[in-house]
Amino acid sequence: MDKGILVVISGFSGAGKGTVIKKLLERSDEYCLSVSMTTRAPRPGETDGREYFFVTREKFEETIRENGLIEHAEYVGNYYGTPRAYVEQKLNEGINVILEIEIQGAMNIKKIYPESVLLFITPPSGDELERRLKGRGTETEEVIAGRLSRAFEESEGIEEYDYIVINDDLDDCVDDILGIIRSVKRQPSRIEPFIDELRKGLEKYHK
Amino acid sequence: MDKGILVVISGFSGAGKGTVIKKLLERSDEYCLSVSMTTRAPRPGETDGREYFFVTREKFEETIRENGLIEHAEYVGNYYGTPRAYVEQKLNEGINVILEIEIQGAMNIKKIYPESVLLFITPPSGDELERRLKGRGTETEEVIAGRLSRAFEESEGIEEYDYIVINDDLDDCVDDILGIIRSVKRQPSRIEPFIDELRKGLEKYHK
Repeated sequence: MDKGILVVISGFSGAGKGTVIKKLLERSDEYCLSVSMTTRAPRPGETDGREYFFVTREKFEETIRENGLIEHAEYVGNYYGTPRAYVEQKLNEGINVILEIEIQGAMNIKKIYPESVLLFITPPSGDELERRLKGRGTETEEVIAGRLSRAFEESEGIEEYDYIVINDDLDDCVDDILGIIRSVKRQPSRIEPFIDELRKGLEKYHK
Repeated sequence: MDKGILVVISGFSGAGKGTVIKKLLERSDEYCLSVSMTTRAPRPGETDGREYFFVTREKFEETIRENGLIEHAEYVGNYYGTPRAYVEQKLNEGINVILEIEIQGAMNIKKIYPESVLLFITPPSGDELERRLKGRGTETEEVIAGRLSRAFEESEGIEEYDYIVINDDLDDCVDDILGIIRSVKRQPSRIEPFIDELRKGLEKYHK
């Protein structure tokens, strides 16, 4: 069985990453979402192992020491990290693992897992991003302005991604992602066992 | 409008390249097949500009001198070559141009057009290749043995291709190719104008 692919998804705040990932998981059972580990307390309705793996500070630090996290950060007094065991178990089962993470984290992942595939999700234009952020109606003008300014800064780094996916129509965007991962699985470096097998099967004909 | 992609297709004799390309051209109008130039005489039923561009030896050599061919070779006393003007015109019109060519030619094309995409079409196994070659019933045992031996030699070079496409089911194989080219068009280096536009559109929000 082929190993799964580590699919790193980033994108501007307001690009619709969450919706795209939710739809992707609905449409294909070949994908799962990496569940982060955190030291913050569960909120009502959150289940251990679904939203997060909830652990104590001691357990988290022990996991860091044992090299059990791919990456981690501290935020507002709590640790957040990506458990290595879960990701590698799923990849070994042939499941593609989605990691939603910001640009700097994505670049770090690429260094550790060069075979990961980095996707950047963007709306078709800056104006459309503004429309979406305002359309939510949940944030102040100031917060929206901050997000848009941040988007410009983030746009400086998007050439580092393997693929830029435009989220205009939701299903088209999910189609693009499924197509990208399918095509990536046709790259010679990812199907070495098949190539070896093919070559071995042809060798008997060689004169 | 985005430029088309130069799609180089190689594969073992008996892999079904011709059938795959024919089906691909039927299913999508975003592709055309590069028409070669030759000095050999047209056969009954062949039309200038469809099977080949039929030219005189003088015209062919003039075209070589004017750098009008991407690549060319002499075979059984006749020239065969790929006209640059046709390929570049189609690419500029946003049409993907298919070039069916053997391994060494494919490697040469990649040097001249680094942005081309190299596909290698293979049956699922060596045994299946043998079955297909024998199933044609048009060649002698000796010719088939020669083709199988050649296939082993060619299999040594297939890691140089960008993608390996398995021709098991014809429509799946065409789906794979369409998906690969679609995904390739999401690579940052191929959508620089879009990225520039996006960035320009976000700049006004920068504080």
